[in-house]
This record gives sequence, structure tokens and C-alpha cells, in this order.
Amino acid sequence: MRLRHKPWAVEFIDAHTDVVIPNPEAHKTKWSEVFGNDNPVHIEVGTGKGQFVIGMALQNPDINYIGIELFDSVLVCALEKTIEAEKPANLRLLKVNGAKLEEFFAKGDVSRVYLNFSDPWPKIRHAKRRLTHEGFLKLYENVLIDNGEIHFKTDNRGLFEYSLVSMNEYGMALKFVSLDLHVNMPEDNVMTEYEQKFSALGQPIYRLECQFKSNK
Amino acid sequence: MRLRHKPWAVEFIDAHTDVVIPNPEAHKTKWSEVFGNDNPVHIEVGTGKGQFVIGMALQNPDINYIGIELFDSVLVCALEKTIEAEKPANLRLLKVNGAKLEEFFAKGDVSRVYLNFSDPWPKIRHAKRRLTHEGFLKLYENVLIDNGEIHFKTDNRGLFEYSLVSMNEYGMALKFVSLDLHVNMPEDNVMTEYEQKFSALGQPIYRLECQFKSNK
Repeated sequence: MRLRHKPWAVEFIDAHTDVVIPNPEAHKTKWSEVFGNDNPVHIEVGTGKGQFVIGMALQNPDINYIGIELFDSVLVCALEKTIEAEKPANLRLLKVNGAKLEEFFAKGDVSRVYLNFSDPWPKIRHAKRRLTHEGFLKLYENVLIDNGEIHFKTDNRGLFEYSLVSMNEYGMALKFVSLDLHVNMPEDNVMTEYEQKFSALGQPIYRLECQFKSNK
Repeated sequence: MRLRHKPWAVEFIDAHTDVVIPNPEAHKTKWSEVFGNDNPVHIEVGTGKGQFVIGMALQNPDINYIGIELFDSVLVCALEKTIEAEKPANLRLLKVNGAKLEEFFAKGDVSRVYLNFSDPWPKIRHAKRRLTHEGFLKLYENVLIDNGEIHFKTDNRGLFEYSLVSMNEYGMALKFVSLDLHVNMPEDNVMTEYEQKFSALGQPIYRLECQFKSNK
């Protein structure tokens, strides 16, 4: 899919404000008004083409999902798929920078953060850009409920090794680790586009669940 | 190698008290007398046929090594190899149960614990027997110096997943994690017999270094 050749992307996104929320700052502390209920809000930072967050929304109608993606050219795919899925009532998308989460969410607004196949930024000088760097963990902690969780999947060995060390160093509790998720595939596992691609190539998929400790 | 067909093993071990220390209890708090120096003592719990601990002793003459193995039939191989290696002055073996470490070592006697390709005990009801179970971590902490480290290698995915969670839960600091050690093989890596076998089959070797925190 040649995403860069979609000059109509911005216009298409702007025409669907029922899915892609235009002023997310306005809903800080009030996301229940957007969804019309008090269900927990789970966010995916770097939602890409949307297969995961849409699949989760369809699978779990009692959870509200927000997919966050900075790039128009990718977000437009997630939007198209959301429309194809008949716009689940418990799903919204945000075209924002994940590094600015605190502008849109207050402490406790979010019940869980999903990170899937995030950019590995393999060079050490780019470590701060990894979505499991201490700086991002602090950000997630500042918008999550107490004892909130991060669920993280990747095929990238280096990023997973780094993330285990980073989360441990931050003082998080590792609740679950799988070093080959598809060997004992959980029944409710929703695959991302990357996950389908890389697991088809025989590469292991790594996954972890970790939790912030309230008594740090 | 058919270890069970060595009826002479006990006799052979008993004839080499210069290598296999017969009364380790007597040396508690006084291991420097055994080695004739104050160098740090590193122990391997479950030393098997000895290739690792002997290789480490030859590579690092300023560290004292103690290989611990319960089974005569296996320890005798480590003894034979030690003799072949001309009995390095900084190496001893103990024919004891790793669960009884505290009988032979006092707090601070040991500077590092190595665990290599430990029995995975895959059944949940046997979890307490895994050498990275909380009960064993407590044991290691009780004989290690403050901020002492455990270095752990295995090819067993389930045991490594379990160990990451167990060590994190115990409050240890994960210092290093590799999910495929041989991709970027450290120059000083000494391979165990199992490691040679399994890596030759293309299986990833997992490795971690973790550290007890003195301010827990």
C-alpha cells in the first residue's frame, strides 16, 4: 500500500470528525461524554493501519478504545477500516503525537496502554524515542489509573530486550512475558498487520504485560 | 555418555579431595583459606559436566570458581575434565545439594551466582524446584555480597519467561537481557555443553544478568 500517494488523506480525515476526534484537548477528564458511558478507556499509541484497535473494539464492546496515530497517510487507512467496520460506537481515533498524551488525558483517564510493533529506533542515540523509554513510561503513568497496565507486542528482539530492562528499572511489575506468543496463541489475541506478516515468516512475536505500582 | 554406568564414580570422587571439597561446611566464611587468596568467589549451581565452570576458571584466574553438582554420575565428568585441565588453582567442585547453599556459605561469601541450562521443571506444581523460584532467589541473596548478581543462561523459553517475571517480582534489577545470545556473541562467552548442542540446532540461547538491590 503506497500511503504517500494519498493527497486526499487530510481532507478525508477532516470529513470524519465522528471517528477522528478533532479537538481532543477539549475532552480531557471528560472522555465518558465522548463515548456516552463510563466504560474503561484503553488507548493504543501508534495505532498504524488500525487492524488491532478495531479488532479489539469489536471483540470487547464494554471497553472504549482510542487509537492514536500521528501520520495522516497511515491514519487514513485506520479510518477507512473503521468505516468498513461500521464505526464501532466504542472506538475513536486521534491524529496526535503520542509524546503529547498529557494534553488530551488527565491522570486516571486511561485504564490501559497498548503498544504494538513500535518503531525500534535501534541506534542508541535514538533510545529516547522508543515508546518504552523511561520518558514515555512516565507519560503513560501520568494518564493511567493507579496500577494501570501496558500491554506490548513486537517482533523486534532488540526493542523487547530494551523494554524488559527499561520497565524493570522504572519499577514496574512484569505480570506476563511470552517470547513466542504464537506457540500458545491466546484465544482472544487480536493480530496487528505486522504481526500477521512477521509470524507468517516464522519470526517469534514477543509480548509482555506490565503494571505500574501505586506504592512506588 | 552413559553416566549411569560408572559404578566407580563415588570412589573416584572420594580419591580427589583436592578438587571435590569433602566437608564444605568447614569452610563457611573461610573460603579464602581454601583458595589461598581473597579473590571473589563465583559459584555455578548445577554445574553438570563442568565445561562452563572450568572454561571460566581458565579464562579468569583472578576469580575463584566453585561448581556445585548433586549427582555423582555427572560430577565425575566435571572432575575428569578438571584433571584434564590440570586442576586450575582457582577451581573447586562441591558434591552437594544447591538447596543447602546456606550450610556452606555465609552472607557475603559469594560474589556471583551462575545458573546455566537449569532443569526447567515445566509443570506448574514443580515451580518451586526451578532454580529461579523465589525460594532459591532468597537462598542466593543470603550467601551473596550486597548487590550480588545472578547470571543465567538457558535454551528453555518457558523457564526464561518464568525467570524474568520471578526476578522482577523479587525486586531484582535486570541489568542485561539477550533473547538470542549467539547473534552478537560476547567475546568472553564460555559455552556449556548444552549451549553448544542447542545453538548448533539453531535454537536461540536466552541470557540475563540481574542484581539484588541492597535497599529493598
